[in-house]
Amino acid sequence: MTTSTALLLADLTGVAVFAASGASAAVAKRLDLFGVVFVGVVAALGGGIFRDLAIDEVPPLAFADWRYAATAAVVAAAVFWLHPQLARLRTTVLVLDAAGLGLFTVTGTLKALDAAVPAVGACMIGMLTAIGGGLGRDLLTGEIPVVLRREIYALAALAGSIAVALLSACGQATAVPLTGAALLVFGLRLIALRRRWSAPVATLRPPRTGTRGPLP
Amino acid sequence: MTTSTALLLADLTGVAVFAASGASAAVAKRLDLFGVVFVGVVAALGGGIFRDLAIDEVPPLAFADWRYAATAAVVAAAVFWLHPQLARLRTTVLVLDAAGLGLFTVTGTLKALDAAVPAVGACMIGMLTAIGGGLGRDLLTGEIPVVLRREIYALAALAGSIAVALLSACGQATAVPLTGAALLVFGLRLIALRRRWSAPVATLRPPRTGTRGPLP
Amino acid sequence: MTTSTALLLADLTGVAVFAASGASAAVAKRLDLFGVVFVGVVAALGGGIFRDLAIDEVPPLAFADWRYAATAAVVAAAVFWLHPQLARLRTTVLVLDAAGLGLFTVTGTLKALDAAVPAVGACMIGMLTAIGGGLGRDLLTGEIPVVLRREIYALAALAGSIAVALLSACGQATAVPLTGAALLVFGLRLIALRRRWSAPVATLRPPRTGTRGPLP
Repeated sequence: MTTSTALLLADLTGVAVFAASGASAAVAKRLDLFGVVFVGVVAALGGGIFRDLAIDEVPPLAFADWRYAATAAVVAAAVFWLHPQLARLRTTVLVLDAAGLGLFTVTGTLKALDAAVPAVGACMIGMLTAIGGGLGRDLLTGEIPVVLRREIYALAALAGSIAVALLSACGQATAVPLTGAALLVFGLRLIALRRRWSAPVATLRPPRTGTRGPLP
Repeated sequence: MTTSTALLLADLTGVAVFAASGASAAVAKRLDLFGVVFVGVVAALGGGIFRDLAIDEVPPLAFADWRYAATAAVVAAAVFWLHPQLARLRTTVLVLDAAGLGLFTVTGTLKALDAAVPAVGACMIGMLTAIGGGLGRDLLTGEIPVVLRREIYALAALAGSIAVALLSACGQATAVPLTGAALLVFGLRLIALRRRWSAPVATLRPPRTGTRGPLP
Repeated sequence: MTTSTALLLADLTGVAVFAASGASAAVAKRLDLFGVVFVGVVAALGGGIFRDLAIDEVPPLAFADWRYAATAAVVAAAVFWLHPQLARLRTTVLVLDAAGLGLFTVTGTLKALDAAVPAVGACMIGMLTAIGGGLGRDLLTGEIPVVLRREIYALAALAGSIAVALLSACGQATAVPLTGAALLVFGLRLIALRRRWSAPVATLRPPRTGTRGPLP
């Protein structure tokens, strides 16, 4: 049971971290207490709910195990009250977010492989598990998802999910190599943050049509 | 069959009310007839489709029983043509919307409990059934979901779903107490509207970063 | 196997076309390479993933068959690099998009009927399969979905899905009539583009409330 306890702790740590990031975004949008908790819970659980629907694990774990929702709600409410202090912890939040990205990538990819999803699909599901909560957070707060605009983020998750799929194909999906895959995502994300890496942007002349809104 | 007929009528009443609220929002955004019907149908059926996916009732009731889609489409089209008259009925629409919130909360929570979802998850699903259509409406029309910004709305649904879960745990999930739970949601929502209750907002100095858009 | 090969080719053609339309929208929003590929993949696969969740075909085909994701990703990446040249191909893209609409409408409706969804629900699922990717594309790029604002688009898909349901009810859901249904959608969409047909818009005085944003 040590393994499953470790996995649960890893999962709940990811939940807490993403709840904090969602709640911070909602506070910046001046949502009320409920809105902050709601966006925090969506950011924390959204990716996992999508994953469970895609692999037909129903009800999704986020509804089946109360500890997930409780962790997310408590952390988001704490951010609501402690927000001024957290502003000084921005670096800490980014580091924790990178850790959550690594944890969710590994657990998401593993669950999809266990549900007999082929490797390419399992990598997609693993990446979406990791970035899905952030997507929901940004859709709810009216932003173009930062995952689509910012430094290497989803690509780090994708690299990690491919690593997990390769380990699994070689029969090496055990604790130590999987921890390595999570650290790979974590490290890639931190290096990308530090060096401001990002993927290239297409060259583009200003659009001439009047039907599109201004760039955000 | 009286009970199931009553439940069906309650459900279709909620569908009609939410279709009217979605269609009104779409008219205000100057969508065309199809867009108005589409947003109305999403607002009416979106919460229930999410609920059915989460409890693995497939195809979702909204696709399996044509009366749901037909009710939503007819009401939304009626709003499109009758909109000027409806503007004078704003209070009526708010009251009906509160009634829909109560009905969907109770039926959503009950269905989740019947599908063996644990209590905390069933309360989340019940609340999401009630507010999900409004979330879809606001995402489609480019608004930050009002449910996240406005007076006690989702909290009323959450209170009702907890009441249903408690009744069910005590073996009292029968017609009269459940009607009471629906009335609880309805009443909380009306009182919140009347007294302009809302959840607190975090104190916040203006953000300094240039990457975020202006507050809505 | 000729039939299933033909269906697969039709499906992958639709995937490629919608990936191109999603990637083009993302380039216009100045997303980076990953963002362009991601929006392209969502536009190409989103409708089908929703369809498969609704009919409980899990994992969704987009995750189960790597050729879907590979086609979408390669096409979206090609659009990223070739975008300046593509700008001159706008008419070609609109025609291909109309073709994709027809193909996805027919395959989506057929799959729902095969999964024993009643006719009205199958038409809804067929239409959502065809327009779902475009909805996802617009939500991700922060637009009010054009499908809700523009010329007859979803209505063409709805007409096609009703044709498929009628053919199926008459036992005529064979290759030639189904191709006719796809051509019906294709033709309706092209004529609507050519003649600038659109559904009527409700008459509306300017809203007086200050809480709504400006029209896009």
